[in-house]
Amino acid sequence: MKKKLQILVLLQILACQLGSAQTNAPADDWKPASSNQPGREFPKVNSEGRVKFRIVATNAQSVGVTFRDGSPFTKGEDGAWYGYTRPLDEGFHYYLLKIDGAEVPDPNSLMFFGAQRWGSAVEVPAKDSDFYALKHVPQGQLRELFFESKSSASMRRAFVYTPPGYDQSPDRRYPVLYLQHGWGENEYGWGAQGRTREIMDNLIAETKARPFIIVMIYGMTNETQMGGLRNFDIGPFETVLVRELIPFIDSNFRTLPDQPNRAMAGLSMGGMETKTITLRNLDVFSHIGLFSGGSIAVTNITDMAAFKARNKLVFVSYGSRELGNNRGGDPKANVEALQAAGINSHFYVSPDTAHEWQSWRRSLREFAPLLFKP
Amino acid sequence: MKKKLQILVLLQILACQLGSAQTNAPADDWKPASSNQPGREFPKVNSEGRVKFRIVATNAQSVGVTFRDGSPFTKGEDGAWYGYTRPLDEGFHYYLLKIDGAEVPDPNSLMFFGAQRWGSAVEVPAKDSDFYALKHVPQGQLRELFFESKSSASMRRAFVYTPPGYDQSPDRRYPVLYLQHGWGENEYGWGAQGRTREIMDNLIAETKARPFIIVMIYGMTNETQMGGLRNFDIGPFETVLVRELIPFIDSNFRTLPDQPNRAMAGLSMGGMETKTITLRNLDVFSHIGLFSGGSIAVTNITDMAAFKARNKLVFVSYGSRELGNNRGGDPKANVEALQAAGINSHFYVSPDTAHEWQSWRRSLREFAPLLFKP
Repeated sequence: MKKKLQILVLLQILACQLGSAQTNAPADDWKPASSNQPGREFPKVNSEGRVKFRIVATNAQSVGVTFRDGSPFTKGEDGAWYGYTRPLDEGFHYYLLKIDGAEVPDPNSLMFFGAQRWGSAVEVPAKDSDFYALKHVPQGQLRELFFESKSSASMRRAFVYTPPGYDQSPDRRYPVLYLQHGWGENEYGWGAQGRTREIMDNLIAETKARPFIIVMIYGMTNETQMGGLRNFDIGPFETVLVRELIPFIDSNFRTLPDQPNRAMAGLSMGGMETKTITLRNLDVFSHIGLFSGGSIAVTNITDMAAFKARNKLVFVSYGSRELGNNRGGDPKANVEALQAAGINSHFYVSPDTAHEWQSWRRSLREFAPLLFKP
Repeated sequence: MKKKLQILVLLQILACQLGSAQTNAPADDWKPASSNQPGREFPKVNSEGRVKFRIVATNAQSVGVTFRDGSPFTKGEDGAWYGYTRPLDEGFHYYLLKIDGAEVPDPNSLMFFGAQRWGSAVEVPAKDSDFYALKHVPQGQLRELFFESKSSASMRRAFVYTPPGYDQSPDRRYPVLYLQHGWGENEYGWGAQGRTREIMDNLIAETKARPFIIVMIYGMTNETQMGGLRNFDIGPFETVLVRELIPFIDSNFRTLPDQPNRAMAGLSMGGMETKTITLRNLDVFSHIGLFSGGSIAVTNITDMAAFKARNKLVFVSYGSRELGNNRGGDPKANVEALQAAGINSHFYVSPDTAHEWQSWRRSLREFAPLLFKP
């Protein structure tokens, strides 16, 4: 009797443990990530948003990834190391491998520039990924070119998105959005991880957005101390953007080269840059987009009458998981105060995302249709 | 006396050893490689073409790189590992780090696609690097776009180089070169490591080459078995190129859409593809470039009269260090036989380079001026 009880208790405990283990075990529906290098099976992502890695490092003592709170990595029967993350937000996440104290890119992933480096990233499939998918719709182009910046004594790279039909409509002119990346990123970000081309092609195909040109450049001028914020002065960047890039674009592309047809937006640091530069240059930009990069308070506007006369849009967005961390006041309250002051102002919250690219892809999707309305 | 002699002998030996050590030690004029990520000090290159690495892998047992015959890596006083290569050829070289059995990209280098992967590479400064330097000359654009391929049921990426002035000359039409990468590489190669944009902009600025469009796509159609050669059939790629890409380019760019204004060239595998496809499509291509990718023998030409009537150029090139390894006959003899048969045929040897990008950059520099002559 006592033994039976003991066995029952043991079975109960075992069942609980098994149940618990089964509950905690990751869903076994792993699929190769779309951010993998061609033909690579790992990393894999499952339906919970976990990412599983396979790392060949035969003689390593310790292997992992830079994601927090994942499973410990263990050696598989094939001699490779395996481990997986906690469930991640839908969307795009930077990471590196950790091998015996080295932090290195994963040879299985495509490379993206973030956190001040070309490194790895993984795409966790999002329920709304359709809006940035490559589709059978008329295609725009992403053009890489260099322009001369006398103020910074350099040739500077720009990426220019031209919408579908640009080459076929030689008499048509287009508005322009200047679109900035965040700190630690560069001019590749919006085209690669931001999916700007796909987002715009799809919006234009659905006639949700007017076709316009988008211009993306590196948002700092201190390349030699790459990304150093301590000595960062926005003045030299403002000069490059306003005095050099805009005239270059207006003379090399078929733009509508006036204030009503010129917008600026940016994410994070790029949002702060956008706020500073647009408020200083009301005669240059009419539409403003701040993605996870602050908001504009009524008190930021020195001459409300002038601002109202010239500004056509203030768009502010955040990921839902980062709201509450806002410097510069409550963004929603700031947007509502602008609305009350008669400014065309919009506030968007990306559901279930943080300070990350899924928030910014969605922000572009929401922002673009509001631009350059007749 | 005996002791003095011993000391002298010892000093002599020591001096010899020091002398020998100084002779074998690498030249101490290391400079950061131009292929480094922004702001990274390592890898460094010296005047002998050696490359020195600094790898942070605190707990690793064994660290190295995939270059052969370098110095062993040892831990420096800062806890990082240091080692250097033998003198390398001038130009561009792929590599990976080796850390305790893992082969991973170097977090200090920019990333390039070669050997079937996005990984690291280092640029050893060449004496003739001026021809592919970014200069203050009129700039072309490198455009990324996608076209629909029904035959392969896919949207396929193309890079299109448009020469300086393309956008400013809406009534001008241009010849087109279709330019292919080698095995293990992809459509990014000619634009990134090949420096196609810089080479062409510079040649055009010096009026050494006529402005023309260059189109670069992935040279295989079996993406799922990325680069698998065993089942590789050139037929499907020929269909994509000739039946889908060319009509797409001719209807989306201001081309001169006829055989006299259409060239094809490629390096290594891309040269072999060029040979096969151009010989099968005399009515499509008039100019042929084979860079380290075989040559055309008189016996390859089934109808010499037809070939002579239609072909305008056969260009064949190799790196000097790879000559003698040629499948398909002696390329110089083949070129001379074509010349004897009345074909406009050229042979170029890149000095002191092997089967590598410096040979192919120079090949493009030599080939482009010969194209589309009135």
